[in-house]
Amino acid sequence: MRTTETTATISPAGALTSAVQNRHPQIEVRPASTDTAAYRYDYATAPRPDAVPDGRPGPAVAFPTSADEVQTLVRLAAEFGVTVVARGAGTGLAGGASAADDQLVISTERLNRIVEVSPLDEVAVVEPGVINGDLNAHLREFGLFYAPDPASFEISSIGGNIATNAGGLRCAKYGVTRESVLALDVVLADGSLISVGHRSIKGVTGLDLTSLFVGSEGVLGIVVRATLRLRPLPVARRTLTAFFDSTASGAEGLGAITLSPVRPAIIEFFDRVSLEGIDGHSGTRLRERGESLILIELDGYGIDEQAADLEDALTRVGARVAVESDEDSAALWELRRYGRGLPASRRFIGEDIAVPKSALPAVYRSFAALEARFGVEISAVSHAGDGNLHPLITQEIKPGDDPAVVPESLAEAATELVRVALALGGTVSGEHGIGTLKREWAALELSQRSIEAQRAIKAAVDPQHLFNPGKAI
Amino acid sequence: MRTTETTATISPAGALTSAVQNRHPQIEVRPASTDTAAYRYDYATAPRPDAVPDGRPGPAVAFPTSADEVQTLVRLAAEFGVTVVARGAGTGLAGGASAADDQLVISTERLNRIVEVSPLDEVAVVEPGVINGDLNAHLREFGLFYAPDPASFEISSIGGNIATNAGGLRCAKYGVTRESVLALDVVLADGSLISVGHRSIKGVTGLDLTSLFVGSEGVLGIVVRATLRLRPLPVARRTLTAFFDSTASGAEGLGAITLSPVRPAIIEFFDRVSLEGIDGHSGTRLRERGESLILIELDGYGIDEQAADLEDALTRVGARVAVESDEDSAALWELRRYGRGLPASRRFIGEDIAVPKSALPAVYRSFAALEARFGVEISAVSHAGDGNLHPLITQEIKPGDDPAVVPESLAEAATELVRVALALGGTVSGEHGIGTLKREWAALELSQRSIEAQRAIKAAVDPQHLFNPGKAI
Repeated sequence: MRTTETTATISPAGALTSAVQNRHPQIEVRPASTDTAAYRYDYATAPRPDAVPDGRPGPAVAFPTSADEVQTLVRLAAEFGVTVVARGAGTGLAGGASAADDQLVISTERLNRIVEVSPLDEVAVVEPGVINGDLNAHLREFGLFYAPDPASFEISSIGGNIATNAGGLRCAKYGVTRESVLALDVVLADGSLISVGHRSIKGVTGLDLTSLFVGSEGVLGIVVRATLRLRPLPVARRTLTAFFDSTASGAEGLGAITLSPVRPAIIEFFDRVSLEGIDGHSGTRLRERGESLILIELDGYGIDEQAADLEDALTRVGARVAVESDEDSAALWELRRYGRGLPASRRFIGEDIAVPKSALPAVYRSFAALEARFGVEISAVSHAGDGNLHPLITQEIKPGDDPAVVPESLAEAATELVRVALALGGTVSGEHGIGTLKREWAALELSQRSIEAQRAIKAAVDPQHLFNPGKAI
Repeated sequence: MRTTETTATISPAGALTSAVQNRHPQIEVRPASTDTAAYRYDYATAPRPDAVPDGRPGPAVAFPTSADEVQTLVRLAAEFGVTVVARGAGTGLAGGASAADDQLVISTERLNRIVEVSPLDEVAVVEPGVINGDLNAHLREFGLFYAPDPASFEISSIGGNIATNAGGLRCAKYGVTRESVLALDVVLADGSLISVGHRSIKGVTGLDLTSLFVGSEGVLGIVVRATLRLRPLPVARRTLTAFFDSTASGAEGLGAITLSPVRPAIIEFFDRVSLEGIDGHSGTRLRERGESLILIELDGYGIDEQAADLEDALTRVGARVAVESDEDSAALWELRRYGRGLPASRRFIGEDIAVPKSALPAVYRSFAALEARFGVEISAVSHAGDGNLHPLITQEIKPGDDPAVVPESLAEAATELVRVALALGGTVSGEHGIGTLKREWAALELSQRSIEAQRAIKAAVDPQHLFNPGKAI
């Protein structure tokens, strides 16, 4: 069997696959082939559903079931000189988990055990392949929840959430993923396994490697276990809507929430085009209630006082505020997550910029000039409590256009909007990560010296550049 | 003037001092001498007040007033091969800011401007020398506060708080320093200045260098500006006391808070010896109310509901719960901070261990055996919400003992207690840092591979090992 590994024509990835199959038959590995083509992509880079398969092979893909097997795979990959892409559920929106046919994907799909839930420590210990929503379903019986709630929570994995430092809707009150990760077990590029962090909220022994691994998009190590901070389910929840007469007045109105003493769990802002998009896609009539909407979830103690104080603050800046019934609340949050759809007749680019909260009105004001200049339409729903916008920049597909090609004017409009965010003191990516898609934009944000420092740290931890080359930094 | 720099007898630190004085006369620098002896120490390493000065000189000390001057000093230090110790207010409790006479201390005392407060962004931009308590006094008029509240808040600087990732009393609810630091300007060892992080809560462009610098105890760079997250002052506060019949029942009773839906801003636990210490020092009669005390501060909306739910939960586990008057509350928190004093007739070691919250009762249970084995007395006040204990291990000074010498049995008891914490899944330092004093203990906690990774990162960022050698890692 060993002869197949050393023939002149076999690729390093092929030799690695054979070595895993021969030496460690208990680890399932699929060779690079058209069968693994799906692993070339994540949600950001996947072809449109109507695209014709191009017949190119995907990467080799391994499915370890233990930390030990991950260590084995990493050591073998280093031995054969094959670079490694760690992959959670593949729902990333920046290309961070995309892989080529000369790489090894280490999938965490089967590292999916909830190892422990400790109500007295308020922690859960999980493997990286556990789906975010599954964890929260499991925690409900304990009266606890895991706060980070990316919009993908039903399909994205905790490991992927950690790799991207995933955000979500509740971050202004409960923090991003980093604030809920207490400790990690990580496989390094030399195959060693280290434990970093603590099971307590406090702990300052040595450098904070836990935070460094969170959001590192697979370039520093592979997380094989995580200790997560949990919180008690709130004693009450309430949904408020605040409709305004224009996008501009709604964006300005957000400041009234900041200046009030109330800190909602969720503050989502919809501009006029976003409301129209939902109405068109979902058959609702939100637009009749106003030109923009702040959708708010309050939670915790004193919910009546909270609602009253917020209603006061928002009414004073011209909002029509309503406390929604439980049924209407559920429908509204469903619309927030799935209501908008994407226009089949238009090409689009989605963004993930974040700005200082006070700059949100300026971002919305910037859309008109960009629309006129580039012949596009721009709208945005915002996680307004943390300054994170998801602009959707679209352009009509004209007869004769290739729907698979992003026209230059659309790409230029997107880059220009990124520049607007940066000029306002903002950032290229609030919560999706840099991956492959946003490296050029990242270079607009970070200084050369800062990029050098990041690359030096990467090289210190992974001198062979084994992990996820060409991504993130 | 240049000739004095090149005489054979002058030390590198002396040459550096002369170079600063000659080339950059606007930067105040004091040469290494007995006048700077105080800079040999921080609060952890300072001699007892009654100690006789030993006549040894302190380090050279520079007092820059701008980021640019810090850059200049760092470049000169590198040129002359003099290592650099950044120093805030010197209130650290682990020796992290201590310096020798062949080093340059860069003091941030005069980098003490509050640059900006933005209520709409909920951020403050400050220089590192700003005192924590001064910042909060300044923020009060805006209705805002900066959450991290180390017990030293009246005298410790924001830069020092960042260097140690300082904790405090409110961390279980509001997070440690890291959770309140959004962005930093940092001078690196090559004298370059980089900006890391974001002015928004979200931002994932590149590796999270902000979190890496927080808690790095001056070994990676010198913070010259920080963007801090602020929060609205709570609409209400209330203090509850819960007295128990024994230390053990009080420690067990802490779990009732965790299992309730209430999350207090502060949960401090006092064992019997701590209560007696306060009564002895402050003339109070707390011990008459019980053998242990959980002192709680609630804040925010629904304060009556919160108090009622917590009183229920604690009464069910045997506590005598009282809501304290405003006056008594103020007195109790004053006692928490300053009430205990330190026994003049005893030698002592203070610790800073943290454990998973569920293990707090086991730590208190461990004291008796250690007391018997080492002939010491052990007590602890805990920041119980985050598992952080400050044990005080004391031993009587007998006639003929040198009060300046820590006897071996006391040191051994301290190390053994650290081992107890580690065996329970805890950590050597919850919030004070490692500095010089706890490096041996840190080696008990961290694996060799983890320490190697930390040192590789240090070397990547500071290849000359210019910054704070021999500290933290």
